[in-house]
Amino acid sequence: MDTAAIEQIVRNVIVQFEKESIRETAAPQSATAERTLPVEISARHIHLSEEHALQLFGKPLAMKRELSQPGQYLSTSRLRLIGPKGVLDNVAVLGPERSSSQVEISMTDARALGIKVPVRQSGDTKGSPGIVLASSSNIVAIEEGVIVAARHIHMSPDDAKYFNVQDKEKVSVRLNGIRPVVLCDVLVRVHRDFRLTLHIDADEANGCGCDGNTTAVILKDKE
Amino acid sequence: MDTAAIEQIVRNVIVQFEKESIRETAAPQSATAERTLPVEISARHIHLSEEHALQLFGKPLAMKRELSQPGQYLSTSRLRLIGPKGVLDNVAVLGPERSSSQVEISMTDARALGIKVPVRQSGDTKGSPGIVLASSSNIVAIEEGVIVAARHIHMSPDDAKYFNVQDKEKVSVRLNGIRPVVLCDVLVRVHRDFRLTLHIDADEANGCGCDGNTTAVILKDKE
Repeated sequence: MDTAAIEQIVRNVIVQFEKESIRETAAPQSATAERTLPVEISARHIHLSEEHALQLFGKPLAMKRELSQPGQYLSTSRLRLIGPKGVLDNVAVLGPERSSSQVEISMTDARALGIKVPVRQSGDTKGSPGIVLASSSNIVAIEEGVIVAARHIHMSPDDAKYFNVQDKEKVSVRLNGIRPVVLCDVLVRVHRDFRLTLHIDADEANGCGCDGNTTAVILKDKE
Repeated sequence: MDTAAIEQIVRNVIVQFEKESIRETAAPQSATAERTLPVEISARHIHLSEEHALQLFGKPLAMKRELSQPGQYLSTSRLRLIGPKGVLDNVAVLGPERSSSQVEISMTDARALGIKVPVRQSGDTKGSPGIVLASSSNIVAIEEGVIVAARHIHMSPDDAKYFNVQDKEKVSVRLNGIRPVVLCDVLVRVHRDFRLTLHIDADEANGCGCDGNTTAVILKDKE
């Protein structure tokens, strides 16, 4: 191999290296607008306190399969929700047990059950309506705890750094479904155990025409 | 009254007049961003051809009450929709009769019925699925015509001039409900018989947390 050929190879490697470097430094600047969020549609579900789980099933909840957020699982148990106007059967119970029971339904469900339900972040159940929970062997009435889950993004501290957002910050998210929309005021929740996911409910998913191919992108007003 | 006082009054009137003039000429420029659209939530409903109405009810449709768009009405008749997986009872039939039958449902309904339904503008039913319609006295199977109605804005030519939009143009609309969103690609339909209204379906309404107080504003990209 002659010197000119070697020089050419070295020159190519340098050019390639420079391109890679540009790509690496450029990525974080443009990525906020480009990196998509996995979208998960939360179907109606129930979280139970230890006490309610024992009353309804006579034993603690057991795992059927893991969910996307580490430690959370779909249990082997299902319940009937009984409202003043209607019932919803076969509603999933998620584990593990929590400090208090909480029922997350859509507005469509609330209408079918005949109750008026506020849109709230998980855990914020003060003043929300109650409902009757029925298993095949027992019935439990909870005095409050029924909410429509407010949409939110789970992310790790690394993701938060990547997207340049803080815990509890609100962002807008463009959902490129069959009926494209921009969701405003989407709460960001940052925790080291969280896996990057946008959680919306069944009404939001149907209203946006979401399917498995739908992508979501954070739009930050300040940028 | 001395001359100075008269001069002062005249000066005030002129200033007032100029302010009014500014307000008048300024209004049309800023109004696009401010004038709100009435929002109507389209519940599931059925349009029938004359032939199908006669087959199902033995007589033409009769008006129960007028709807917002002139000439359109809620009929006195209701039907059952029968899908492969489920049924929906007591579905409103709208009048007057049309050249072909069309069923407008939400994606939530489509799931309950067990059919896959495209999002389409009214009248665009080619290739859409069929369904079985049942009255108390007869059953009719339609081969196609079931759609999820694509959101749209009805407006008169005067409204179109006011908002500076054309028939068939697509605009974005901010819906200030409990869960604020921007709906993208909303079709504008201009006709001299149309009354200004944004039509969205039940899933979109629930997904946005719309109620009677929700306002909608056109956001035009080009402005």
